[in-house]
Amino acid sequence: MKIPVIKNLQTANEQVAWENRSLFKQNGIIGINLMGAPGAGKTSFILSTIERLSKNIRPAVIEGDSATAIDAELIASYNIPVVQVNTGDRCNLDAAMVSSTLSYLPIMNMDLLFIENVGSLIFPAGYDLGSSLNMVITSIPEGEDKPLKFPKIFADADLIVLNKTDVAESFNFDKSRFLQGVRSVNGTAPVFPLSCKTGEGVEEWLEWLYGRF
Amino acid sequence: MKIPVIKNLQTANEQVAWENRSLFKQNGIIGINLMGAPGAGKTSFILSTIERLSKNIRPAVIEGDSATAIDAELIASYNIPVVQVNTGDRCNLDAAMVSSTLSYLPIMNMDLLFIENVGSLIFPAGYDLGSSLNMVITSIPEGEDKPLKFPKIFADADLIVLNKTDVAESFNFDKSRFLQGVRSVNGTAPVFPLSCKTGEGVEEWLEWLYGRF
Repeated sequence: MKIPVIKNLQTANEQVAWENRSLFKQNGIIGINLMGAPGAGKTSFILSTIERLSKNIRPAVIEGDSATAIDAELIASYNIPVVQVNTGDRCNLDAAMVSSTLSYLPIMNMDLLFIENVGSLIFPAGYDLGSSLNMVITSIPEGEDKPLKFPKIFADADLIVLNKTDVAESFNFDKSRFLQGVRSVNGTAPVFPLSCKTGEGVEEWLEWLYGRF
Repeated sequence: MKIPVIKNLQTANEQVAWENRSLFKQNGIIGINLMGAPGAGKTSFILSTIERLSKNIRPAVIEGDSATAIDAELIASYNIPVVQVNTGDRCNLDAAMVSSTLSYLPIMNMDLLFIENVGSLIFPAGYDLGSSLNMVITSIPEGEDKPLKFPKIFADADLIVLNKTDVAESFNFDKSRFLQGVRSVNGTAPVFPLSCKTGEGVEEWLEWLYGRF
């Protein structure tokens, strides 16, 4: 009698992440784990995207925040399905938190799910939520060195957004140095420089997004 | 528009434990999380039970062990479905490990599942596996004071087995002191003194078990 021996143990987070990812796939949903420092423009990016989004793509949002529902209220004012997760003293979302929101969302009637993680370039790194895409948003005022200072989160990204390009000049932002930093940790993720304020560059990101469906 | 706000967050382990428990319930399986120190007699207890078990109850076993499959091979020699989980440097099973074994077990054709945890009175405490019952086995040579020294694992037990009663005299084991210790941390769990070696007391445990189905 052959005894099955199980050695490569999955963590509970990996298992729940797998379940989330399967559910998204089955329902044709692209789920985006949106990570970035506080003030990088995560919520603005979601709103900029939603405002310009093709009418064929129905968005929904999960808002991660330690205690408030300020961002969720802003998104709800656009009449978009939104669920707030208050993480308390935990500094990132995990797969079980995402899973716990899903019964509140119109899974059968949505195509694009933004999962706004808690504002940090450290803690969300490496936590698989079961998202279809991992995205990092950083912004001009944060400086060019962020990919080198936070290599893990940039290395795991499927796409990177550089926000607030409208103020690049006043910050003397060295874009090629930034891109070099990105490429030293991540060889493949596309980088979208854009401004949620002026709308510059948002269409390029949308074109790429449409190609994912 | 009312925003759902999720605050009482379930951990991934809790979610997977819930899934395991639901699966057991749906299939009429009693899953027993069997915890105890190394040498308490966990595997002997499983074999003593299986040898005397009513033919109507089909057993299966998950064996947790840091590296070996010695216990699993012993159980397989009885022609019982068994899966080995090697936990490596982790000192207890968790719900995801149990979940990862389930596809190797005849879920539709089993009634009683022993989940032999890694030998320890500390690490398995408080990890919900999704079992129907949490059981602690301790043995005469370990002494009367174990419930007081390891209150968490005894407090969470649904039943407690005191093994190796055949050597109680030579160890001058004070049974009433042991029972007092149990009751100081756990007011309700039944205690079954028995000897896997002689079989004394095993029928009482089986009668109780049959009452759970």
